[in-house]
Amino acid sequence: MAKISFASDYQEGAHPTILERLGTMNLIKQPGYGTDTICASARAKIRIACNCPHADVHFLVGGTQTNATVIDALLAPYQGVITASSGHISIHEAGAIEAGGHKVLALPHRLGKLDAHAVHQYCKTFFADENRDHMVAPGMVYVSQPTEYGTLYSRSELEALRNVCDAYQLKLYVDGARLAYALACDQNDASLTDLARLCDVFYIGGTKCGALLGEAVVAPNPATLQHFFTIVKQHGALMAKGWVLGVQFDELFSDDLYLRIGQPAIASAQRIRESLVQNGYRLAFDSPTNQIFVILTNEDTQRLSQTVEFSFWEKHDASHTVIRFATSWATTKQQTDMLLSVLERQA
Amino acid sequence: MAKISFASDYQEGAHPTILERLGTMNLIKQPGYGTDTICASARAKIRIACNCPHADVHFLVGGTQTNATVIDALLAPYQGVITASSGHISIHEAGAIEAGGHKVLALPHRLGKLDAHAVHQYCKTFFADENRDHMVAPGMVYVSQPTEYGTLYSRSELEALRNVCDAYQLKLYVDGARLAYALACDQNDASLTDLARLCDVFYIGGTKCGALLGEAVVAPNPATLQHFFTIVKQHGALMAKGWVLGVQFDELFSDDLYLRIGQPAIASAQRIRESLVQNGYRLAFDSPTNQIFVILTNEDTQRLSQTVEFSFWEKHDASHTVIRFATSWATTKQQTDMLLSVLERQA
Amino acid sequence: MAKISFASDYQEGAHPTILERLGTMNLIKQPGYGTDTICASARAKIRIACNCPHADVHFLVGGTQTNATVIDALLAPYQGVITASSGHISIHEAGAIEAGGHKVLALPHRLGKLDAHAVHQYCKTFFADENRDHMVAPGMVYVSQPTEYGTLYSRSELEALRNVCDAYQLKLYVDGARLAYALACDQNDASLTDLARLCDVFYIGGTKCGALLGEAVVAPNPATLQHFFTIVKQHGALMAKGWVLGVQFDELFSDDLYLRIGQPAIASAQRIRESLVQNGYRLAFDSPTNQIFVILTNEDTQRLSQTVEFSFWEKHDASHTVIRFATSWATTKQQTDMLLSVLERQA
Amino acid sequence: MAKISFASDYQEGAHPTILERLGTMNLIKQPGYGTDTICASARAKIRIACNCPHADVHFLVGGTQTNATVIDALLAPYQGVITASSGHISIHEAGAIEAGGHKVLALPHRLGKLDAHAVHQYCKTFFADENRDHMVAPGMVYVSQPTEYGTLYSRSELEALRNVCDAYQLKLYVDGARLAYALACDQNDASLTDLARLCDVFYIGGTKCGALLGEAVVAPNPATLQHFFTIVKQHGALMAKGWVLGVQFDELFSDDLYLRIGQPAIASAQRIRESLVQNGYRLAFDSPTNQIFVILTNEDTQRLSQTVEFSFWEKHDASHTVIRFATSWATTKQQTDMLLSVLERQA
Repeated sequence: MAKISFASDYQEGAHPTILERLGTMNLIKQPGYGTDTICASARAKIRIACNCPHADVHFLVGGTQTNATVIDALLAPYQGVITASSGHISIHEAGAIEAGGHKVLALPHRLGKLDAHAVHQYCKTFFADENRDHMVAPGMVYVSQPTEYGTLYSRSELEALRNVCDAYQLKLYVDGARLAYALACDQNDASLTDLARLCDVFYIGGTKCGALLGEAVVAPNPATLQHFFTIVKQHGALMAKGWVLGVQFDELFSDDLYLRIGQPAIASAQRIRESLVQNGYRLAFDSPTNQIFVILTNEDTQRLSQTVEFSFWEKHDASHTVIRFATSWATTKQQTDMLLSVLERQA
Repeated sequence: MAKISFASDYQEGAHPTILERLGTMNLIKQPGYGTDTICASARAKIRIACNCPHADVHFLVGGTQTNATVIDALLAPYQGVITASSGHISIHEAGAIEAGGHKVLALPHRLGKLDAHAVHQYCKTFFADENRDHMVAPGMVYVSQPTEYGTLYSRSELEALRNVCDAYQLKLYVDGARLAYALACDQNDASLTDLARLCDVFYIGGTKCGALLGEAVVAPNPATLQHFFTIVKQHGALMAKGWVLGVQFDELFSDDLYLRIGQPAIASAQRIRESLVQNGYRLAFDSPTNQIFVILTNEDTQRLSQTVEFSFWEKHDASHTVIRFATSWATTKQQTDMLLSVLERQA
Repeated sequence: MAKISFASDYQEGAHPTILERLGTMNLIKQPGYGTDTICASARAKIRIACNCPHADVHFLVGGTQTNATVIDALLAPYQGVITASSGHISIHEAGAIEAGGHKVLALPHRLGKLDAHAVHQYCKTFFADENRDHMVAPGMVYVSQPTEYGTLYSRSELEALRNVCDAYQLKLYVDGARLAYALACDQNDASLTDLARLCDVFYIGGTKCGALLGEAVVAPNPATLQHFFTIVKQHGALMAKGWVLGVQFDELFSDDLYLRIGQPAIASAQRIRESLVQNGYRLAFDSPTNQIFVILTNEDTQRLSQTVEFSFWEKHDASHTVIRFATSWATTKQQTDMLLSVLERQA
Repeated sequence: MAKISFASDYQEGAHPTILERLGTMNLIKQPGYGTDTICASARAKIRIACNCPHADVHFLVGGTQTNATVIDALLAPYQGVITASSGHISIHEAGAIEAGGHKVLALPHRLGKLDAHAVHQYCKTFFADENRDHMVAPGMVYVSQPTEYGTLYSRSELEALRNVCDAYQLKLYVDGARLAYALACDQNDASLTDLARLCDVFYIGGTKCGALLGEAVVAPNPATLQHFFTIVKQHGALMAKGWVLGVQFDELFSDDLYLRIGQPAIASAQRIRESLVQNGYRLAFDSPTNQIFVILTNEDTQRLSQTVEFSFWEKHDASHTVIRFATSWATTKQQTDMLLSVLERQA
């Protein structure tokens, strides 16, 4: 029997309306590189959703690529990017940022989050250092919403980061690889409009949020990303059939689909968390979005892995392991039921 | 009325069987990053098609990305890549190769082709130069099959390039962005098996040859591309949903589809060329694959552009222009008929 | 009255015998780029001093340049370099390593030193991580001898690092910008022969150790640094008048000058430390070489700065500051006397 | 008997007054990294010599390093640098410009010179190309004065290049590795003041013009090179003992030494050229500065090489070779006499 998989949120394909639309458009010839009318329509819808009529919107293929391209476009050669040490760019992008010539300046994190005050202290110390011209200057702040720990920045936390950025002339960039799962979460109070108000650039994740592939980069001020088309091309991030990305975001931003698409994941994750607690499991920490982190004994971890696919997160201590379940936009009630039944049985 | 478009070969979506298969697989959870069974199946089929049972096969997203990643993987930091001056990497990749730190060593071309003897002369001169250690050493040869001019390398021309590469310890890399149009062409005598026998690495183009997106990198010797997974990731070229690429190549390599898929393009191009000649148009040069290059007066160019989309290629002289028509795997007999009728009318 | 300066160890020019020799050689024509007989002589002497008859020896201009060039030569594109977080490459090289495309993997330090066990743990965790192919692989270990804190690695500590490097196939590279001050120190038990036995590459510092400029890169195994001449050139690190560097190392390695040249610095530093302790000052930590770190009240720091030049090291707490005195090969007994007299007066 | 050497202009050390001054300053402690008063004095003298009171002046170590650092500082990531195909950055810098991520855009040269009209045509074509956003944009023009062929740009030729640069918003950068030999030449009409008026950045060569090492980068507009100190550091091009460079330029710009220092080279070269012509040798082309290019039979080349050191330049035809003699600031009348006597004897 196939295992139930809660291993990640990129395991399924695309929302059915997207596939359907791809089918409809399939043999209609389109101009290349995102110059088509479908991309234009998708851009217009995103601008409306972000309440940001002049925003610059670009469609790229994947997350690491998007981060490397945007960071390269925003930084001067002598600048680096501040991130939580747990940030995706710091650990899991195979050095893509450094391959572009930029240092990743990792600060300690709290459950995946970067503290505005810590950024302030870092910058204050840096700019007061008489040797600062021998060092990599902080040029931007990178955060992900939600974070790699499934936690959320509140609107006021983002505002605090914005204030620090303003104080030290840093750019603020939000990686929204899983943004739909923030937007669908009750505890979230940072809307697309807030992101557009506070960020220099952010991206709206497609790959993990209902698209086959694709991420939408949004620069609220159209002067921010000069010559970005060429920079995207230079990074190998420009799709010939740009309309394939356009179609997906055009669908995701029709009838507020993107705002709703994460709801099944959030609902499932909530049920899993409640069930875990009720059955006496210990959560590693509280994460309100589509990722659930549980501390199991090594034996339970081993046993569970025979019927369920999940991610190893980290060793907790010699005899315990932290594992991660991830739900997605496509997670069904039935799949959740099956997981709960296994968890209950093994409790 | 919409114009007839012969502007490029990436204007349509995917071969219908690919879209169908994507629909079938859509909600079946797959592991990430190309570790799934569909990718494994596609790899196995490609190995068979190339008669190369141990080949290393990787799926990337697009052409520039593939070139930048492969070239970076094959070259040492002090080496550069030899190409025809008309090569895609030399002109139309926005400096992606140089962004990876490598010089593009452009030699003169003849209808888009690089001459083995010219490569030999270049290397002979280089390695005899007493200042060669102050210079970028040639480390590989890049050619595209078919070329940007729609021309083909014969098997013996590729063998000659291989011999030069062997003599000077260069890698040979073939960019097959349009490879299906070579394979479907009567005049082509270089099979997939030949490419696998002669190249260190080549890629089988998907984007322009019936896939929504995707290119299949083939290294016949599995020791050639060490740590390529990480290098791909570092280049932002690793798709989370690798199976989306796998599905496409699994279909393209079922029932020899890839060997057949270019045939409508070649047939259409042949009809267009014959009609052009019959109607007194002047071909810029002979190109046997899916691209046709015609010399028109500037007035005819202007007039034609009102009903047909095509590409500007270059100025021929003050009063004439070279334009390009491109057919594709999806070009229909009806579309070709319409173009011929326009061309006849305007002759 | 001019202040007494103990601000750094690169404030004076060159050892007098070097200047004299430069004068003697000045108008004798030499071939370029280190191909001259003086460089050959200097290389031969260094090989003897290191007890390493086949070592590859290269002369570069400065420390950051040498680190960036050697690290680039030793690492594959997907690899990073492990260092103590206090390491020069991590903080004070303006991102030169990242500009070459490599991540600096900073581990916690203890008084500037990297612990072999910590490196072992890091590597063990890394190579056990199922996501390691998405991450920057450790490819080498960088340490400086003495460290930025003036501390020393013992021979057995270096052996322990070598063992970890062997276990995980890492290169070991020692930055010897201040190596003469280690070699002149009683507490040091790691000789040039030990460095040659244990390192893949190390460099013998000239700039801070009696030369006008210049660092000598030593690779005990001549197969280690393939095509290094071209890599040096590509980094802008190849001096046309290479003999100017050769002359300096030829003098520094005549009559064991390099082994003796740090002695005045060590003797002066020892006197300063003793005087500080006798006069009730508090050392920040114990450093046996030519750098002395003292905790002063902010007021004392301010007062002292009116007659003595020193370096600010870091804030100790709200009311105290750590400052650094550095002695050099050129520090005279008289200069030390003057500093002691000021320190005594202010105690 | 030692051969007479006319192999290059970097074979001797420094002008005697420089060595003397280094001796005088040797043990006077200086602050690091060019923040000393000697560098300040040298900068002031250079500003006066260039009639450019606000110029930004930086001292770097060598030519390739200077080119790589300046070009990196002036270009955006998506831009490349236009040069004559014979330019030093195009051929003899081991890919240093590409290692910084920038394409070198090589145009045909005439005796080492770049024609303003050719640059104009290139830019006009580029900016009219509908695919230009897929291509590397020209961002600056690099020329050397004198060129690698010993030829000179006239003031009006430089003005023409400036006009093209203005028309297409390109930076103009002049590599003055051998600038003293232009300034000492009768045929030169482009003064330091002209360079300061016409260039965005230029550098005044020290290494080949009387210094032990060092090049002075001049940016007439102090806003041109933002954060250049850190960029220099990142390139490994920042000398700890910056005053060593400062001393040299302070001497070279005392009493107009730099304007005079090339005169012996020019006088010697003129004598050599006249003697060659009188003795029936054939000059390869006319070069008015310190490099002389002669066409010899292969036998004569071989025979001459037994008593004289010179450079191989290129093969002329199967039986003839072009060789180069280079004179320098330190070439004596006696050395020239000896060469003339050999040439006469072999004529």
